[in-house]
Amino acid sequence: MHQLQRTIDAIRPPDGSAHRAALQRLADQARPQGSLGILEPLAARLAAIAGSLDVRFQNKVIVTCAGDHGVVTEGVSLFPQEVTPQMVYNFVQGGASVSVLAAHAGATVRVADLGVNHDFPPDLPIFHCKIGKGTANFSRQPAMTREQAIRSLEAGIEIVNHLVDEESMDLLGTGDMGIGNTTPSSAIIAAFSGLPVATVTGRGTGIDDAMLKNKIAVIERALALHRPDPSDALDVLAKVGGFEIGGLAGLVIGAAARGIPVLCDGLISTAGALIACELAPAAKAYLFASHNSVEIGHRCMLERMGLTPLLNLDFRLGEGTGAAVAMHLLDAATRVLAEIKTFAEVGIANAQEG
Amino acid sequence: MHQLQRTIDAIRPPDGSAHRAALQRLADQARPQGSLGILEPLAARLAAIAGSLDVRFQNKVIVTCAGDHGVVTEGVSLFPQEVTPQMVYNFVQGGASVSVLAAHAGATVRVADLGVNHDFPPDLPIFHCKIGKGTANFSRQPAMTREQAIRSLEAGIEIVNHLVDEESMDLLGTGDMGIGNTTPSSAIIAAFSGLPVATVTGRGTGIDDAMLKNKIAVIERALALHRPDPSDALDVLAKVGGFEIGGLAGLVIGAAARGIPVLCDGLISTAGALIACELAPAAKAYLFASHNSVEIGHRCMLERMGLTPLLNLDFRLGEGTGAAVAMHLLDAATRVLAEIKTFAEVGIANAQEG
Repeated sequence: MHQLQRTIDAIRPPDGSAHRAALQRLADQARPQGSLGILEPLAARLAAIAGSLDVRFQNKVIVTCAGDHGVVTEGVSLFPQEVTPQMVYNFVQGGASVSVLAAHAGATVRVADLGVNHDFPPDLPIFHCKIGKGTANFSRQPAMTREQAIRSLEAGIEIVNHLVDEESMDLLGTGDMGIGNTTPSSAIIAAFSGLPVATVTGRGTGIDDAMLKNKIAVIERALALHRPDPSDALDVLAKVGGFEIGGLAGLVIGAAARGIPVLCDGLISTAGALIACELAPAAKAYLFASHNSVEIGHRCMLERMGLTPLLNLDFRLGEGTGAAVAMHLLDAATRVLAEIKTFAEVGIANAQEG
Repeated sequence: MHQLQRTIDAIRPPDGSAHRAALQRLADQARPQGSLGILEPLAARLAAIAGSLDVRFQNKVIVTCAGDHGVVTEGVSLFPQEVTPQMVYNFVQGGASVSVLAAHAGATVRVADLGVNHDFPPDLPIFHCKIGKGTANFSRQPAMTREQAIRSLEAGIEIVNHLVDEESMDLLGTGDMGIGNTTPSSAIIAAFSGLPVATVTGRGTGIDDAMLKNKIAVIERALALHRPDPSDALDVLAKVGGFEIGGLAGLVIGAAARGIPVLCDGLISTAGALIACELAPAAKAYLFASHNSVEIGHRCMLERMGLTPLLNLDFRLGEGTGAAVAMHLLDAATRVLAEIKTFAEVGIANAQEG
């Protein structure tokens, strides 16, 4: 808990004067004011975080947190739990969706085992942070203890500290892998928002109507049984969360404390980001929403955090795939701010000053 | 006319068997079916155009067509006409918005003078295809002759043939520069669609309510005066179009005839693409809409062509800026198709076959 609280306390607001200088330069560039739409506020936020108008991301990393979920025994997912470790191996070998999209974005993918129900070889090049071999079935008992929730958050923080200190990471994307993990994610937003479970629960990997009905009932039962306290994010995470979701929350808090922008991906990554922002509202200034997932709970999470997604890709995959695609937009925004010439620099009269 | 008609006749449909094979491979990949959203149909279309499941764009080019417009004397734009050539020089020097975003996309920018009201030095490294020094004021007389309309289209075709033959271009983005050119673009979609001018006319570089009212009245007057025939795209282009819009239409027809995918940008590029598709409906199979411009007429054009924009960036700039950003998505789609492993390749059971 000391590390978690210390890290939360270390989060500082971005540089307001760099933000203002960035907006001024964008307004002075030789093009109609505001004509580069969403790239402009994005560029200004990134400048504020870096304290510089010439930001160049050199070490982009996507950390994909993996964990298993006891609640899968309730029949909430199409895929068997064995797929979680199989996909971890696929990430490491570079053949998975996030591997391909991250490579295209010039980013590396690092996998973290927060709680996969499988013994990975100790020399597998992943972050070995297993809190437990899958959570408990939260429709019957809390997913994890409060102590485990804190440890999962601190594991995420430690990963960020390692990547910043040892590998000079300057942009972080978050991703997830865990069969069944849309179920805790929907439970988390339902717990915080008080919205009916049916309005925040989607089809995950593609379940049919009957399975969706069951998934909603499982979440409703869990919330009625545990009554997680929406003002206590650790309570929500412990009772209806997941180990990888705790890790994802820790990544956001850790990145904010180190002054690194962090892109969350789809429903599960954003559930982690939501836990982070409930624990540490100051982290929000470092957080960017990559895209708008097909999963209906995702929009509710983003609204609660006041974030507008950068892309609408109709993705429903996770892994960090949306974060990888969005990294190109962040890079584009930094180039726009630094490189487009001003009216004065190119000697063109700005009609808008007349 | 011979070259235009020959080029239209040379357009062949993309490879249906490559399209089917691409969709099958996407469905077999180790991830939930359809989970990569818009990248999947995009990848399949690109595979069909290339006749291959492993497409790699190596020579991406954005051609920015510039031209001036006599109608600016009616007070439809914030900026003076002198800005058109000034921006051409800015493109050539690499400091403009499209220069920066194209470089970030790994694309080169090539500028074409279709009708700027300025004498460029003959050694300026642009395509010198001037049809005239600006169109006539179409609120009083036709913007150009039918012969000039054909020549502007053929100039676009010749640029594509040059870039394919001499520079191995394999992906084309279109862009525009021309003070006042949202006015002909709105006139073009109004002429084809019959929609009220007010519903397809926006603020361009940022005009106020009074100027917008005047702009709408100018377009209404021109349409009433010339009565362009919506079944004759050359008539529409000649009466209320622009030289660069003809060039942009020629780029699309030329790219389709050479089997090259082509990304249109905002309102003006898309007005050109619309002219192209009205003349040569088969070109549509090679055409991709980069983004959804803030300009309200843009959506009507895309709907008429049945195209869904890839991005929502709130851009209202032109130059090819949206096409540049979208190139990253096209590249991502090709990598997704070629590189993500199938369930069989990684030895994971596909739940969805059970």
